[in-house]
Amino acid sequence: MEEYYLALRKHIEEISPLTDQEWEYVAQCFTYKTLKKHQFLIQKDELVPSEYWVIKGLLKTYTIDSEGKEHILQFAMEQYWTSDFQAFQNQIPATLFIDCIEDSEFFCLRLENRERLCQEIPKMTNFFRIKSHYGYIALQQRIMSLLTETAEERYNNLIKKLPHLIQRVPKKLLASYLGVTRETLSRLKG
Amino acid sequence: MEEYYLALRKHIEEISPLTDQEWEYVAQCFTYKTLKKHQFLIQKDELVPSEYWVIKGLLKTYTIDSEGKEHILQFAMEQYWTSDFQAFQNQIPATLFIDCIEDSEFFCLRLENRERLCQEIPKMTNFFRIKSHYGYIALQQRIMSLLTETAEERYNNLIKKLPHLIQRVPKKLLASYLGVTRETLSRLKG
Repeated sequence: MEEYYLALRKHIEEISPLTDQEWEYVAQCFTYKTLKKHQFLIQKDELVPSEYWVIKGLLKTYTIDSEGKEHILQFAMEQYWTSDFQAFQNQIPATLFIDCIEDSEFFCLRLENRERLCQEIPKMTNFFRIKSHYGYIALQQRIMSLLTETAEERYNNLIKKLPHLIQRVPKKLLASYLGVTRETLSRLKG
Repeated sequence: MEEYYLALRKHIEEISPLTDQEWEYVAQCFTYKTLKKHQFLIQKDELVPSEYWVIKGLLKTYTIDSEGKEHILQFAMEQYWTSDFQAFQNQIPATLFIDCIEDSEFFCLRLENRERLCQEIPKMTNFFRIKSHYGYIALQQRIMSLLTETAEERYNNLIKKLPHLIQRVPKKLLASYLGVTRETLSRLKG
């Protein structure tokens, strides 16, 4: 477990270096959780108590449309933050599902703990500010990709940006994320 | 001009109330800028010195694909923040265009001023944290809309969320934002 906490500290200190005393305060705001492959981290219509930092594993965030089709918004793996952020922030029922593609381990941060952290340690406010800002930029790029790129371009960019992801994600899910059929994806990979 | 500064202060204080002394410090970090309809706020391949808070007016953020087709990422109007945030944050050339659909007025915040503000006034760090977080949530919703909704659903949701925008944006641009042809849009509006 100690090694997990060290990884989280390193992740935070890439943006906001902390004193040992500050880190002690930060660390006790997180709780540990583990889930098996196929288990849900978040289910639609349920409340979302926490946001989650992935220690190990792989998850998908998705919605299911009125025809039962799954649409993948994001993948999350080691060192990613994930949640249904709208539901979490406003403490309303989730509109998204998040489940585990692999056995996964997390640190959970409850809303009240995050706000307390930001009040007590301004460096943590800065950490979350920068993370949100980069998250925003990444989503802008995903939108531009959905609006302007062909399936082939999207696939090639994903290989460039996240080569390890391609190895770990079943083809069916990759196709859903890219917004193409599995047949199109097989053609691209051929 | 005084009324513009009051509007900015009100906007910030909806999240982070400030003392008069803090506000004085904040206000001097912003500069005023005005542009006429069709003028560019940001052009592709140029550096992006600032992020912009819209006092008055309406703008569109877009990209142009290899076939010369325009794809609209976002609109910005009164009280919105806009920029090519990736280029701004990393001080690299813009990949997006932003131009004015109406005559527009802004407060500009340079990167070094924003960082200085966040260093000096933790409440401003918190303001930007919350704004980024809500911006992130809004973009997630736009992605889900692009992945799962029909043109008709997207149009109806836009009417619900931003009724004033529909009145102000030319149909051609609205169609580009929704990712539909102008003919489809006319049918929806009929």
